[in-house]
Amino acid sequence: MRVFVDCDPGIDDAVALAYLAARPEVEIVGVGAVFGNNTVEVTALNALRLLDLYGRPDVPVAVGASRPLVQEPRLAGHVHGENGLGDVKLPEPVREPVAESAAELLVRLVRENPGRIDVLAVGPLTNLALALGLEPRLPQLVRRLVVMGGAVEVPGNVSSHAEANIANDPEAAEAVFAAGFDLDLIALDITMRTVATGAWLDRLQEVPGARAQNTSAFLDFYAEFYRGIFGVRQCAMHDPLAAAVLVDPHLVTEAFEAPVRVELTGGLTRGMTVADRRLRPSNDERRAARVVTEVREDEFLDRMLDSLR
Amino acid sequence: MRVFVDCDPGIDDAVALAYLAARPEVEIVGVGAVFGNNTVEVTALNALRLLDLYGRPDVPVAVGASRPLVQEPRLAGHVHGENGLGDVKLPEPVREPVAESAAELLVRLVRENPGRIDVLAVGPLTNLALALGLEPRLPQLVRRLVVMGGAVEVPGNVSSHAEANIANDPEAAEAVFAAGFDLDLIALDITMRTVATGAWLDRLQEVPGARAQNTSAFLDFYAEFYRGIFGVRQCAMHDPLAAAVLVDPHLVTEAFEAPVRVELTGGLTRGMTVADRRLRPSNDERRAARVVTEVREDEFLDRMLDSLR
Repeated sequence: MRVFVDCDPGIDDAVALAYLAARPEVEIVGVGAVFGNNTVEVTALNALRLLDLYGRPDVPVAVGASRPLVQEPRLAGHVHGENGLGDVKLPEPVREPVAESAAELLVRLVRENPGRIDVLAVGPLTNLALALGLEPRLPQLVRRLVVMGGAVEVPGNVSSHAEANIANDPEAAEAVFAAGFDLDLIALDITMRTVATGAWLDRLQEVPGARAQNTSAFLDFYAEFYRGIFGVRQCAMHDPLAAAVLVDPHLVTEAFEAPVRVELTGGLTRGMTVADRRLRPSNDERRAARVVTEVREDEFLDRMLDSLR
Repeated sequence: MRVFVDCDPGIDDAVALAYLAARPEVEIVGVGAVFGNNTVEVTALNALRLLDLYGRPDVPVAVGASRPLVQEPRLAGHVHGENGLGDVKLPEPVREPVAESAAELLVRLVRENPGRIDVLAVGPLTNLALALGLEPRLPQLVRRLVVMGGAVEVPGNVSSHAEANIANDPEAAEAVFAAGFDLDLIALDITMRTVATGAWLDRLQEVPGARAQNTSAFLDFYAEFYRGIFGVRQCAMHDPLAAAVLVDPHLVTEAFEAPVRVELTGGLTRGMTVADRRLRPSNDERRAARVVTEVREDEFLDRMLDSLR
């Protein structure tokens, strides 16, 4: 199984990489970095550091977009720490990102392996939108796309109706949703209900080794941020759940299919992921995405912990 | 209990008027007509006809807005019939609407009875917005405002996220929601789950008398429209539920409080009622509305039937 990961590490991005790196059947063919949880310079360095940590030091990392297509960038230091990894210091990487941009790396890899690469996108979708600009056949060349982003039937997290990855580049997200990918959407609809509890975090703290101990430290920072939302020490597992759904589709027990669009002009709703959920929706030529609404949460969390042992 | 009704009859408006007219403790102090389910000329005549039918032939009816504040009007003949009442012919009214506009009548009545009149608004909110323009103290002069409109956490009915009354004049609705009324919102969140079933409609068919028989004929037309949505013969009870909540507040068993806004600029979401339902919503200076989410459905439907006996 060949996977290209586009990400902005970011604490939950890190845990998603840990999940993929632990699976022997997964070849991570490349990692694209994008602005989002931090600047792209930081997220690219973090991707290198994390691939070293999780035992995949040979995966090429490409620097991607430093800003959204249209709007001004916003970062999220308060959620992920000033260094993007909960202020946990990892060793400096010994290598550099590749010369290609993230979009160019993705396009080259899927042209070389048409229909054989899955893409996991867990940051703003800017790199994917740029790749679509370089290669309009991207949806046919990519086997399957799993996106962490959006809030379809639940509240947002950066505004009442918008989720961070989509709101960080709504135009890019709309371009990706319009393109016709075989698309699974792992939105807040499921990630805000799929949480690492305090007890799970305690179990992780007891797992020895650098992989588990650093990941535990990342997540302890993240859980402190989420304590301000949930009222207890626990954290949403946004990006790891998307990685798990990519690798283990049987974890999904319920989803609905609907074309998804991004509101681009709403004064209150810009960045909202819009699906027509009426009993009799309008006819729509856009290819439907699968929006995941139920997963085997216990199995996912067990697998997540196993991947760090 | 003094009630001013602003409406666009409309089948469910008719049933709301029937509910109020049957209650001896309710004085309907005036009715404003507004465009919406039909032109304002038709809805005003229908209001006169319905007050005759339901035994309140002395209530003043005022013609209100013929179009929205900003956008072009759309009507709903396919839902309510060409005459607005399911193509059921009622006798012509013997009297005319009053000379005042609906907004002027409302403003005069609440100035004469400050804090003693409740308003039931079951059409586009244009007349209320105009009344606010004439009398900015309207929210203090009106005791309580119950609005049928919006879709807060559920799909819309004229687009994926917008409900007809709000979408028919989003600017007017936003002006009303911003004004600081003591406001109950009876949105699709509850009205699409509070339906007159086929069995209930059958019971109504057996009630003798012009009031029940005409209302039964209205609702049979309405239920045919709704068969195309629900797949079975039944209909939502939008406006009657709002009337019932106004008169019998104990019917409400669950509601949430949140400031509500109307999306005015969204390409996909214009007309959407927006509330911040995050676990930690943003601070908001706007007065919260009560959005009803659960009612005593059986008691409501029994009362509705009783009001037509």
